[in-house]
Amino acid sequence: MTEDPNELKALTLICTLTPSPGESSTDKLAHDLDAELSKYNVKNEFIRVVDYNIKPGVETDMGDGDNWPMIRQKMLDSDIFIIATPTWVGQMSSVALRVIERLDAELSELDEQGRPLTFGIVGAVAIVGNEDGAHKITADVFQGLNDLGFTIPAQAATYWNGEAMQRTDYKDLDSIPEKVAGANAIVARNVAHLARLLKSNEYPAAE
Amino acid sequence: MTEDPNELKALTLICTLTPSPGESSTDKLAHDLDAELSKYNVKNEFIRVVDYNIKPGVETDMGDGDNWPMIRQKMLDSDIFIIATPTWVGQMSSVALRVIERLDAELSELDEQGRPLTFGIVGAVAIVGNEDGAHKITADVFQGLNDLGFTIPAQAATYWNGEAMQRTDYKDLDSIPEKVAGANAIVARNVAHLARLLKSNEYPAAE
Amino acid sequence: MTEDPNELKALTLICTLTPSPGESSTDKLAHDLDAELSKYNVKNEFIRVVDYNIKPGVETDMGDGDNWPMIRQKMLDSDIFIIATPTWVGQMSSVALRVIERLDAELSELDEQGRPLTFGIVGAVAIVGNEDGAHKITADVFQGLNDLGFTIPAQAATYWNGEAMQRTDYKDLDSIPEKVAGANAIVARNVAHLARLLKSNEYPAAE
Amino acid sequence: MTEDPNELKALTLICTLTPSPGESSTDKLAHDLDAELSKYNVKNEFIRVVDYNIKPGVETDMGDGDNWPMIRQKMLDSDIFIIATPTWVGQMSSVALRVIERLDAELSELDEQGRPLTFGIVGAVAIVGNEDGAHKITADVFQGLNDLGFTIPAQAATYWNGEAMQRTDYKDLDSIPEKVAGANAIVARNVAHLARLLKSNEYPAAE
Repeated sequence: MTEDPNELKALTLICTLTPSPGESSTDKLAHDLDAELSKYNVKNEFIRVVDYNIKPGVETDMGDGDNWPMIRQKMLDSDIFIIATPTWVGQMSSVALRVIERLDAELSELDEQGRPLTFGIVGAVAIVGNEDGAHKITADVFQGLNDLGFTIPAQAATYWNGEAMQRTDYKDLDSIPEKVAGANAIVARNVAHLARLLKSNEYPAAE
Repeated sequence: MTEDPNELKALTLICTLTPSPGESSTDKLAHDLDAELSKYNVKNEFIRVVDYNIKPGVETDMGDGDNWPMIRQKMLDSDIFIIATPTWVGQMSSVALRVIERLDAELSELDEQGRPLTFGIVGAVAIVGNEDGAHKITADVFQGLNDLGFTIPAQAATYWNGEAMQRTDYKDLDSIPEKVAGANAIVARNVAHLARLLKSNEYPAAE
Repeated sequence: MTEDPNELKALTLICTLTPSPGESSTDKLAHDLDAELSKYNVKNEFIRVVDYNIKPGVETDMGDGDNWPMIRQKMLDSDIFIIATPTWVGQMSSVALRVIERLDAELSELDEQGRPLTFGIVGAVAIVGNEDGAHKITADVFQGLNDLGFTIPAQAATYWNGEAMQRTDYKDLDSIPEKVAGANAIVARNVAHLARLLKSNEYPAAE
Repeated sequence: MTEDPNELKALTLICTLTPSPGESSTDKLAHDLDAELSKYNVKNEFIRVVDYNIKPGVETDMGDGDNWPMIRQKMLDSDIFIIATPTWVGQMSSVALRVIERLDAELSELDEQGRPLTFGIVGAVAIVGNEDGAHKITADVFQGLNDLGFTIPAQAATYWNGEAMQRTDYKDLDSIPEKVAGANAIVARNVAHLARLLKSNEYPAAE
């Protein structure tokens, strides 16, 4: 089997607090977004992070059972990196923050041209919550990803939250809300476009 | 007329972008909260900040037409200080941030015991938005107020936002949502309780 | 041995990523703050959270080896609750966020008067980082704690960070910087004052 | 005079609270960054926003003396849009937030292909503060810009802040700190690269 040279690789880290095979709103939104990405020849791999042992620390490998090096390699092999997270107390999940924390190590992992290994990857985010928090989580995720070398395409966030202080879950909605469907389409279109551009036009070397 | 010694004074800064007498969701929520506060013998004054000239800067008085000194005096005379703000792009209004910025000057305005003049005042927040942002704005307002000397009673935030990417305004709802009414009641009860406690038991002097 | 009725209990959760007995700047700042708290008859217990198994989830007990219930009980027995955290990528540690996430369950744990069990507890925060982030972490921690029922005394944050993009650690400083010592003194004084007030004057019952 | 077809246009909004011709650390960092941008054939225009009347509101033109339409046109004519802001109380200036608030109107200003007019522009940020806040401000600015259609190149933030609770200003430093100089170089290189790419490869039309 030969690889399709035009295919883009995406990695989606699903940062729900619920281990597999539990139902997850975060998982559902990540897959709803994927349906749009697939229109642009993007092959997406999903990892439910809570199923793995991501040790605390800020090295690329914290040793002794640490599953981050496996996930990290998939991230480095990707053109598109998506963090999907629930909203708790108005903030991203602790699982999502653990991922960003582990990415901190990339600041010291430079290629021969002095560039982080993440410089060729675009980042995006998908957020669900029965309560509000999506804009803030977008801010925190994009700051983290951008600081650590990822590029953020225009309008690269999709999200859903219910009305204030309600308890509805995204996974229990009858259908994808029209606005969310629209956001998914924009994220997919822009993310695929910019990933393809960067793949054939990498950032210049440090001088 | 004699003052009621048990009466508490509140100042609510309504930080809508809409000048008087324009309709404002922020103004409505501030008054909905006030209906609860009045049950606890709190006399509340409202200022729509955008009607005044609050000059940029970090001094208590930026001179030459600056209306902040007038508002500042009302704040210092209050037991309860409430910031009411809309949500734009997931953030508090620039009018609300201007208020916090002006409060920065309080760090240098200490009484004879070395305490900021704000040490006797409790802070609270009321937030509306057709889109999400309430938890994040709560964070930013409470950090600002607390840093500048205000005390934050338990659960001192009330808010409303609609479902993701909807356009409904709080002022156009048929009635106060039950959850918001409940939050208003808690904020009022706790704010009045702690303001009364602090009024007769001030923070100790610096040594 | 009889208990001292005037003694206040504090619980400090040290949210460093480094397991015991590794050196930790967060641990050091937490103890520097404790030296001030002890002047006010506060007995402080320290838990390095990363040494325990705090399972992901938003229930008070996630079962099967979850150590949160043990920590939660100590929290509920305290008058003062302090989160001490390092700064990574400008944000609190994932360990600290896990703690806040677990506290989310308190919204459903009400006493007979309809109040969260946290209503008698004051919260504070201690933050270190070689890089900036302290104000933002203060915001996120205070929003979380306040939403979940804790009261925030005036100026209840102490912190240290180095100049932009430097690598110095707090634990390697020759002495406690004068400004940090001053902040520790204020936090301790205000936290002890308000905890004592609330202990004998609890928030009113829901009606 | 003929235009250089390879020249990129940048617009830097200097969001200091200090009107011209007052000295400003924000202005200095913006110009330090410009020295790097000029190496990549970028022509940069600077506007000190506080010198103009940017009316509150979320329309492209709030009428009657509003200077935003003039600034907005320059923004739309640019390939690179830079927000330079000071740090007050850990947050961006109210002037910077006013700018983001005014950009909210762009969500309704779509071209014939259904795309915001900002889709061809890359965003970056420059932040100074005697106190910490840079990572948080980066988050808030990037979330705002990205939501409103701007693309964020890898590591598109430069900043300086002093050690915790110090009062040193960036403009009073003897020279540009080495780390800041390095950040300026990266921002300039990446911003110019991505702006050039996007200029000749725009995001696809909505379907």
